[in-house]
Amino acid sequence: MKSIEMRIKNWLKENRAKGARFLQILVQENSTRGNESSAQAVIIEKCRQLGLTLDIWEIGGEDIKQHPAYCCDRENFEGNPNVVAVLKGTGGGKSIILNGHIDVVPVGDERNWDRDPFSGHIECGRLYGRGSTDMKGGTAAMLMAIESIIASGIKLKGDLIFQSVIEEESGGAGTLAAVLRGYHADGAIIPEPTNMKIFPKQQGSMWFRITVNGKAAHGGTRYEGVSAIEKSQFVLERLQQLEKVRNAKITDPLYENIPIPIPINVGKISSGQWPSSVPDVAIIEGRMGVAPEETIQEAKQEMENCLAELNVQDEWLKDHPLKIEWFGGRWLPGSLETDHPLIHTLTESFIEITGQQPTIEASPWGTDGGILSTIGHIPVVVFGPGTTEVAHDANEYIILENMFVASEIIALSLIKWCGVDEETSE
Amino acid sequence: MKSIEMRIKNWLKENRAKGARFLQILVQENSTRGNESSAQAVIIEKCRQLGLTLDIWEIGGEDIKQHPAYCCDRENFEGNPNVVAVLKGTGGGKSIILNGHIDVVPVGDERNWDRDPFSGHIECGRLYGRGSTDMKGGTAAMLMAIESIIASGIKLKGDLIFQSVIEEESGGAGTLAAVLRGYHADGAIIPEPTNMKIFPKQQGSMWFRITVNGKAAHGGTRYEGVSAIEKSQFVLERLQQLEKVRNAKITDPLYENIPIPIPINVGKISSGQWPSSVPDVAIIEGRMGVAPEETIQEAKQEMENCLAELNVQDEWLKDHPLKIEWFGGRWLPGSLETDHPLIHTLTESFIEITGQQPTIEASPWGTDGGILSTIGHIPVVVFGPGTTEVAHDANEYIILENMFVASEIIALSLIKWCGVDEETSE
Repeated sequence: MKSIEMRIKNWLKENRAKGARFLQILVQENSTRGNESSAQAVIIEKCRQLGLTLDIWEIGGEDIKQHPAYCCDRENFEGNPNVVAVLKGTGGGKSIILNGHIDVVPVGDERNWDRDPFSGHIECGRLYGRGSTDMKGGTAAMLMAIESIIASGIKLKGDLIFQSVIEEESGGAGTLAAVLRGYHADGAIIPEPTNMKIFPKQQGSMWFRITVNGKAAHGGTRYEGVSAIEKSQFVLERLQQLEKVRNAKITDPLYENIPIPIPINVGKISSGQWPSSVPDVAIIEGRMGVAPEETIQEAKQEMENCLAELNVQDEWLKDHPLKIEWFGGRWLPGSLETDHPLIHTLTESFIEITGQQPTIEASPWGTDGGILSTIGHIPVVVFGPGTTEVAHDANEYIILENMFVASEIIALSLIKWCGVDEETSE
Repeated sequence: MKSIEMRIKNWLKENRAKGARFLQILVQENSTRGNESSAQAVIIEKCRQLGLTLDIWEIGGEDIKQHPAYCCDRENFEGNPNVVAVLKGTGGGKSIILNGHIDVVPVGDERNWDRDPFSGHIECGRLYGRGSTDMKGGTAAMLMAIESIIASGIKLKGDLIFQSVIEEESGGAGTLAAVLRGYHADGAIIPEPTNMKIFPKQQGSMWFRITVNGKAAHGGTRYEGVSAIEKSQFVLERLQQLEKVRNAKITDPLYENIPIPIPINVGKISSGQWPSSVPDVAIIEGRMGVAPEETIQEAKQEMENCLAELNVQDEWLKDHPLKIEWFGGRWLPGSLETDHPLIHTLTESFIEITGQQPTIEASPWGTDGGILSTIGHIPVVVFGPGTTEVAHDANEYIILENMFVASEIIALSLIKWCGVDEETSE
């Protein structure tokens, strides 16, 4: 076993430039929502070269749309498939799913980027671009790990199921589709950008839209109207209070180093059409974090109660109540006991490669792990090389060294978890 | 003279239905910015039928663009002309400009309208639709007044210059173009929706755009970012304070019944692209009122100072300062002494028709009167039949009775101001 590990580690050390180049190509393919196909083509080409058995399909059939966990406002999936690639084991080992999402969030204000958001530019050991950290770097690490095993002539006993899914950033329909297609395993690793931390628990989250009504008027006589923007200020303040109250209740030690374990993020506001008019409607959209211990429904109820209070406290809102919708993305919270064998395997590999103890924390965001565990009943751990702080930010980057180290940790975990068929391995 | 007045009043009383029908047709033509042409066609047809000398031209030549009072972000004026129609006097009288704008503001959220915003629906003496009050009703009243004089066979001594201009809602380029084309008179009436009040002073105003920078991050770790929406809340609060401070300084008795003489209206806010991301930029747009006694420059300076203070007080803004732009619309303040003969004429006519004293106040909004007076050096009074409170609002309407009464007051003012050539009149 030691010599097998050595072969894998050596291969990975010798092929770092190749791994970085692969990530660069993957980042250069813009895979924002609705544009995932060209990046998936890069994945497909790679998996084909590795000899994996490919399953490429468009999601969105009636079966998934009826599923209670389906939460998606996308109408058309045509031409942007899910990809699953299987390396069948020789038998007798534990199976594993390696899951990564190919979709990336929008680039935001391009003026905040020093370079083209899809440059893949490498400088001082960092590779830049939207998706580099979240989470194409994690996907590249998984594929490097798989390649290192295949290239070293090693045969795994358990099945290895690599998944490159769409829609993670919008509610997880891609992973749900993979679960419903029947992919199951004894464990799953999702290399989201955890800063090399191990996350057994994942925050859930969901999107909300609050509609604030005002009354239009000419700006010169603005006292004749009711500004939806001014009323929105109350709503924003109340959401900030609610966030404080909810987070004060979180006592799980896995969250002790996280400033806001379950944030309420207001991501969008839009109100008004004309500088000289009093705006008559404002739309606030955001993301509400859900604790691993609570249900989606409990969290929703808490926010709805909070807005209902505002509706009775404010004279205007009494007659023109705030409306809340839960739309688009929703990520189920997930939780794995910290002494699960999968955590042990990953921890052991982490120590072997880095010589250090890993940090075990709760995830500050929802991942597809919620669907894999809650719907697929698969033990899930989230661990990856990306830099948490720059996910969704301008000038997003990944530290390539972390990607290489993660690929070694994942490769070691695979052979430990799935087992090596020493007879058929070269 | 009494019999002339009687003939005009009788004609107007007999032709109320015709006037209402004319306004209905005018309102039914959507004349939001860039779409003024079909409503101007209605005006042109009417003026042609009245035998006025028409001047129809596209504004936007190099001469106007170089003018310091030109303040316009519109690139294309093609196909949406200004219209001026002249009724030449027989000589020896004072000339007058009757100025109305044909452009209307956007309809806002259509769900707030009970009917199609351009329905022109008449119910209980009100005519509904965008522009009915601001200010097609005023324009219709002017044209009724002109028609009553012509139809009664009366010849005015002074020239009557009727103007139907574009761009009032966006900074007055249409009226500026008319001034630069050489149209001048001894006085001007603008029937903006004053609730039948007489406004010798007009508030100036201008548009501002404040850019608030944040730092993007994933919403689940929102503490890694800086929300442009949260920073915008400070800005909105500060603008509210500034409005209070500025209005506390207004002591002019003409403003005593106006709750906020020179409002700062935030008309638009837009921030963020994705519910799960911390927004990295917010754009706030609004309208700042300018007192008749201050200059545009003084008002600008006051707001710029206020934002500069915020920029030093807030740690984040210190390094990422707020930016302010003065864009699009700007309306010069205007002022006419309350004992000007034009005010006397209008007041006299008002009393004659209504039997009551008019309310003389300061205008709560900028009008094209600022350009006519400041650039054209023409004494201007703003007086019109529209309902101030519903200007720019959903379900905008005009009380038709007011329109008819205004047409009588304007007609009387015209014969008093311009004088009647009794020899040539029938």
